[in-house]
Amino acid sequence: MKTRAAVALEAGRPLEIMEVDLAGPRDGEVLVEIMATGICHTDEFTKSGADPEGAFPAILGHEGAGIVREVGKGVKGLVPGDHVIPLYTPECRECDYCLHPKTNLCQAIRTTQGQGLMPDGTSRFSINGKPVLHYMGTSTFSNFTVVPEIALAKVRKDAPFDKICYIGCGVTTGIGAVINTAKAEPGCNAVVFGLGGIGLNVIQGLRMIGANKIIGVDMNDSKEAWGRKFGMTDFVNPSKVGGDLVAHLVEMTNGGADYSFECIGNVNVMRQALECCHKGWGESIIIGVAGAGQEIATRPFQLVTGRSWRGSAFGGARGRTDVPKIVDWYMDGKIDIDSMITHTMGLEDINKGFELMHSGESIRSVVVY
Amino acid sequence: MKTRAAVALEAGRPLEIMEVDLAGPRDGEVLVEIMATGICHTDEFTKSGADPEGAFPAILGHEGAGIVREVGKGVKGLVPGDHVIPLYTPECRECDYCLHPKTNLCQAIRTTQGQGLMPDGTSRFSINGKPVLHYMGTSTFSNFTVVPEIALAKVRKDAPFDKICYIGCGVTTGIGAVINTAKAEPGCNAVVFGLGGIGLNVIQGLRMIGANKIIGVDMNDSKEAWGRKFGMTDFVNPSKVGGDLVAHLVEMTNGGADYSFECIGNVNVMRQALECCHKGWGESIIIGVAGAGQEIATRPFQLVTGRSWRGSAFGGARGRTDVPKIVDWYMDGKIDIDSMITHTMGLEDINKGFELMHSGESIRSVVVY
Repeated sequence: MKTRAAVALEAGRPLEIMEVDLAGPRDGEVLVEIMATGICHTDEFTKSGADPEGAFPAILGHEGAGIVREVGKGVKGLVPGDHVIPLYTPECRECDYCLHPKTNLCQAIRTTQGQGLMPDGTSRFSINGKPVLHYMGTSTFSNFTVVPEIALAKVRKDAPFDKICYIGCGVTTGIGAVINTAKAEPGCNAVVFGLGGIGLNVIQGLRMIGANKIIGVDMNDSKEAWGRKFGMTDFVNPSKVGGDLVAHLVEMTNGGADYSFECIGNVNVMRQALECCHKGWGESIIIGVAGAGQEIATRPFQLVTGRSWRGSAFGGARGRTDVPKIVDWYMDGKIDIDSMITHTMGLEDINKGFELMHSGESIRSVVVY
Repeated sequence: MKTRAAVALEAGRPLEIMEVDLAGPRDGEVLVEIMATGICHTDEFTKSGADPEGAFPAILGHEGAGIVREVGKGVKGLVPGDHVIPLYTPECRECDYCLHPKTNLCQAIRTTQGQGLMPDGTSRFSINGKPVLHYMGTSTFSNFTVVPEIALAKVRKDAPFDKICYIGCGVTTGIGAVINTAKAEPGCNAVVFGLGGIGLNVIQGLRMIGANKIIGVDMNDSKEAWGRKFGMTDFVNPSKVGGDLVAHLVEMTNGGADYSFECIGNVNVMRQALECCHKGWGESIIIGVAGAGQEIATRPFQLVTGRSWRGSAFGGARGRTDVPKIVDWYMDGKIDIDSMITHTMGLEDINKGFELMHSGESIRSVVVY
């Protein structure tokens, strides 16, 4: 079949809206009509050429929602008409990782997914007979895409696609880091570094679980209003702190944060995030993705005196199990997604969405097919 | 009263055996006759002058066992004749730290203890009217010492002093890191870096909880027999590994260690210890104390993909609660202490004990009064 898609033909260039050939789903695969997709920094990271593992031509996009249109042989849990959110972190429920209680990093199809291929080592996308690569196993910048069944979360049908698509990455990454990775408790004090699309979701995750102080840190004062909207109790602009930021945060939290979250990808901020944690028990969670080859550092004394340094990917969520619950929370009004989606556009304007992200004008842009 | 003690008059010099004046216990304090004391690397760290917080003259020693001889006003839980192990990490059961479920780092008397003083800001030791400092709140290199009640674990009377003194530091630090800090599970695979007095106790802690692979790493081949004696299943001498040590350990553990323990204090080894952990869930625990100002580093990707970096002090043990249990384990034959104590000597030979530690001849030397 033919599908319309925004194709990344090579690194560093705008996406091109094209007609692409799409082969049908093979064993264990599902054809999904994408109804809406968010535009995330990770797409930009690859599009720009900064991602050392980026390969082209490819169809990017990993924050989508859509409807099952056809299922391949062996697909047992989905039928045409089901509403789904594609998962860049799948959940096979059979590998060593899925069976381990401490991780969500299913490895069932990791190698081929990293190569931009389906689990059988081929691509379903092509142009003039030449293959075009998948991306993160999802390729939601195509109106139709093929995804393995283990990488699809089935969700309720009354949830709006143009909102719940954001649960495919940003919402789950932020809220999940609070509830799955940190397992933060009611009454805790937390510091969130970076009030973008991830940081705001960390903040609303903290509000949801009943945190006490939720301190947001951002160089941009315009983010204060955004943070407060989602539950932030205190705002700190590091450029306006007279003296040491870490000492300032430790004082604000009466000895240090119980939990801190780095949502930027800056290795210097990661160190501050660790060191502003409370002696004895503070835990710092790295969410942001640092540039290739960059390193974090601290004195080991920070750890020996009880702080711990951890990371979170996709919010520690097991997608098929956890994503439908987060959709419920949204539908029940426990979390807010609507006001984070600042811009909506058609596929033809997708490059404008990237520009809005660059300029800092948008929290999230969503493409609606 | 007078007491015989080994005094550190100044940094970098051998201890001097002297008669010292000792004032009686004040409010909340206890006079203890030390019956035996181990000699630990931390004593050497301070004695040598490497410890930036070391102050002189002082009476070192923090790994003792003895008998209560007199109690000050307000002491409720101890009476003369009780057998005790002094705790350099006290347990007041009232401070924010004692009341927090995730830490053992009681802060009740931290400031004065760090200054070598009793909680009221004075010293009980003096020579010719000039104060001599306490050390780690314990000063077990004195035959008699005064210790706050909150820094004494009451233990059973049938346990031999010249063995259980080691529970005052090394045994608890090693075993506690396994059971309190890592909370390692039966069947886990673990890697232990450094097979000295701490590393061997980590190993026997792992054996006690039913670990699967217990891999010991040491540059000194003579440590292999020691490791095996305490439960080590595999030995690696890094200088004999052709290629990368981390990759070798990951292969031996079928993907990486569930838990790793750094028992040396070498920041490069700390990095290896983290990076040999299993993706998704491996946890690395730093026990060793690095030199002043040294830093650990890694790529944040190591954490984002599920490894965590933590530290342990005094094995995460709450001394008054946990130390008596470890004494029971020793008396029940669940752990071995006897064979780690390779040398015993009188106080007059304490400097010989330090020499044996330097030369690597001893695992532990114990001074018996």
